[in-house]
Amino acid sequence: MAGVEKVSQGRPDPGTGPDGKDVHPTLPAIPLYAVLMAGGSGTRFWPASRERTPKQLIKLSGQRSLIQETFDRVRPLADPEHILVVTSRAHATAVARHLPELPRDNLLIEPVGRNTAACAGLAAPTIHARHPKAAIALFPADHKIVDWAGWQTLIEGAWRLIASTDAVITFGLTPTRPETGYGYIRVGAPIDHSALPGLCAADAFVEKPDLERARQFLESGRHLWNSGVFVLRVRTLMVLISEHLPELSAGLHKIAWASPGPSRQRVMRRVYPGLPSVSIDKGIMEKAALLVAPANVGWSDVGSWSALGDVLSPDEQGNVVVGPAMCVNSAGCIVYSSGPLVTMLEVSDLIVVQTSDAILVCPKSRAQDVRLVVDQLRAQGKTRLL
Amino acid sequence: MAGVEKVSQGRPDPGTGPDGKDVHPTLPAIPLYAVLMAGGSGTRFWPASRERTPKQLIKLSGQRSLIQETFDRVRPLADPEHILVVTSRAHATAVARHLPELPRDNLLIEPVGRNTAACAGLAAPTIHARHPKAAIALFPADHKIVDWAGWQTLIEGAWRLIASTDAVITFGLTPTRPETGYGYIRVGAPIDHSALPGLCAADAFVEKPDLERARQFLESGRHLWNSGVFVLRVRTLMVLISEHLPELSAGLHKIAWASPGPSRQRVMRRVYPGLPSVSIDKGIMEKAALLVAPANVGWSDVGSWSALGDVLSPDEQGNVVVGPAMCVNSAGCIVYSSGPLVTMLEVSDLIVVQTSDAILVCPKSRAQDVRLVVDQLRAQGKTRLL
Repeated sequence: MAGVEKVSQGRPDPGTGPDGKDVHPTLPAIPLYAVLMAGGSGTRFWPASRERTPKQLIKLSGQRSLIQETFDRVRPLADPEHILVVTSRAHATAVARHLPELPRDNLLIEPVGRNTAACAGLAAPTIHARHPKAAIALFPADHKIVDWAGWQTLIEGAWRLIASTDAVITFGLTPTRPETGYGYIRVGAPIDHSALPGLCAADAFVEKPDLERARQFLESGRHLWNSGVFVLRVRTLMVLISEHLPELSAGLHKIAWASPGPSRQRVMRRVYPGLPSVSIDKGIMEKAALLVAPANVGWSDVGSWSALGDVLSPDEQGNVVVGPAMCVNSAGCIVYSSGPLVTMLEVSDLIVVQTSDAILVCPKSRAQDVRLVVDQLRAQGKTRLL
Repeated sequence: MAGVEKVSQGRPDPGTGPDGKDVHPTLPAIPLYAVLMAGGSGTRFWPASRERTPKQLIKLSGQRSLIQETFDRVRPLADPEHILVVTSRAHATAVARHLPELPRDNLLIEPVGRNTAACAGLAAPTIHARHPKAAIALFPADHKIVDWAGWQTLIEGAWRLIASTDAVITFGLTPTRPETGYGYIRVGAPIDHSALPGLCAADAFVEKPDLERARQFLESGRHLWNSGVFVLRVRTLMVLISEHLPELSAGLHKIAWASPGPSRQRVMRRVYPGLPSVSIDKGIMEKAALLVAPANVGWSDVGSWSALGDVLSPDEQGNVVVGPAMCVNSAGCIVYSSGPLVTMLEVSDLIVVQTSDAILVCPKSRAQDVRLVVDQLRAQGKTRLL
């Protein structure tokens, strides 16, 4: 993290009129490309999530998967031609099925996962070739947001700002509890811009804190949750990669310079696995001059089954239900069923997840231990259930 | 209950040699007919039990249904030709499927359930017509027994005794806890017979007691659980019915006197629904001179899911599992699955029952409240799940 001096390089031309209101009510002149980074895998949503069906492909609210919701949210700001998805070979078919509107050329497939710096970097040359001045917004594809309109206004504000500057903008989510599972961004000097109220220089990225520090962060009012969403010009991203991760930059160029088609696939298969595996936060953004806009939009990365309660409306007894369920004298439960009726009788604060071949029952307070079940299944060679 | 004087009328000719050992090691000369009373229905094992699949038809231990186990237990003492099953119209097809060895003529179908006196009474004329001197053993078909060999020895002992007397013998199960869900039999004067050690006059039937009385019963050593199993001559049963339930006797005779086939079916449909509905215990046995043999055979009527722990072996953490399940850091649970893997993570004393269309989750201590779920399903018109 370079500090405030460097941030000032990226300080935007506000582009506001005398009354401080935006004088450009139309969309910015440069296109916005959205990049959905959907390479992740994990075990925290077992048995709904599997190796072949990671969290971003689960319909956590019963209707649309998280990647579909991410797509839907950005759709009013970007046509499908301007949305790219980066995912792994294992999930590419499922992603394409979830996003039928996505042009085939906009689905970029990593031979192996090399973390988010490589993932974002892979999309950059493709976008740059289509529109060298484009703004791009990088999104994880496995989070939920309550206030979609508010979120879209923020993305559009960042886009507008980017149209007149080469700033790098991230969103810091207003903390609502002393969360120890998220990274934080410490906010620095305020920067006035009508498109993004509360915009500040980003002072530092802070790793997941312990509970005491998390409480201090919450009280300080100077710390926001790191959303992992970044808006910047595509050329700025390419410059930042070459500056801070030259090895990654060289590899990505090798891939980009190969002829499209089988030739590029061959280079990709040879080069990509050797790229440095680092997150875009750590590898690039911590070292760049960043602006951060506070986002109070009901954001959740839905880190485990227990987090479902934060993003879905509970019934009067505080039960959050997805799929057919009946709660009798039961409270505070999270029930997810893919078909059969789950009946909860005189229990409280339990998680019950029902899929066609496996059921999970655990206390809401122990949702993070789901990996123990997955570990045991793996140890027992029950690969069909992984 | 007639008291000990009357019991002495039924006192058997012991038939023992000078050393007190049985001098008849071969089976008794009169045949034993077993009558399985399988007309019951109930909600306590929902979702495994349904209106079409009552408790006696569930494979509670995963292999054989309770009616199959009852059949298997009596099979070493009675050929299928000597086993009769009385059930309701709704369950007849399923019963026939569960018991393919049972001759079709030995499946007696009640047009409507009229309790156990009518149920046993319906079987009596059929057996009497085949063998007027036969002994019959009446069994409920929805209990579990751990010690099958011990139980068979007791039934055989009663059969042997019946062969030489017209006594009525029941079995009193040695209580292992102050159970308030069972009826009790108070034991009277001891009666010496080598075939049935501990045989006594039965002094009285006692209705389900409250906890304090149940504790007194347990301490007294003079009270046994009522098994609902009776062994007596078929002609004795018919005499007792005509003596104590003349209306039932008259109705049963009307049915028996009709020509076999459609004619008898017609009479049955007309007469049976009007028969007095009373249990064989209350209607007949309480008023008869009864002998009771103590039976320490690990008996359970498996009154609810929580009782499954009494009859199946738990794992080291005290979890009782039927079907595929994995218990991780979980203890004292009862898990029943008809297919999908149930994973229990860091929970205790829960019941989880999984069928193809419904799952139940409830604390072990609230197993008797399952009817609340069934009531609510009925109120919501979800008849497919009843």
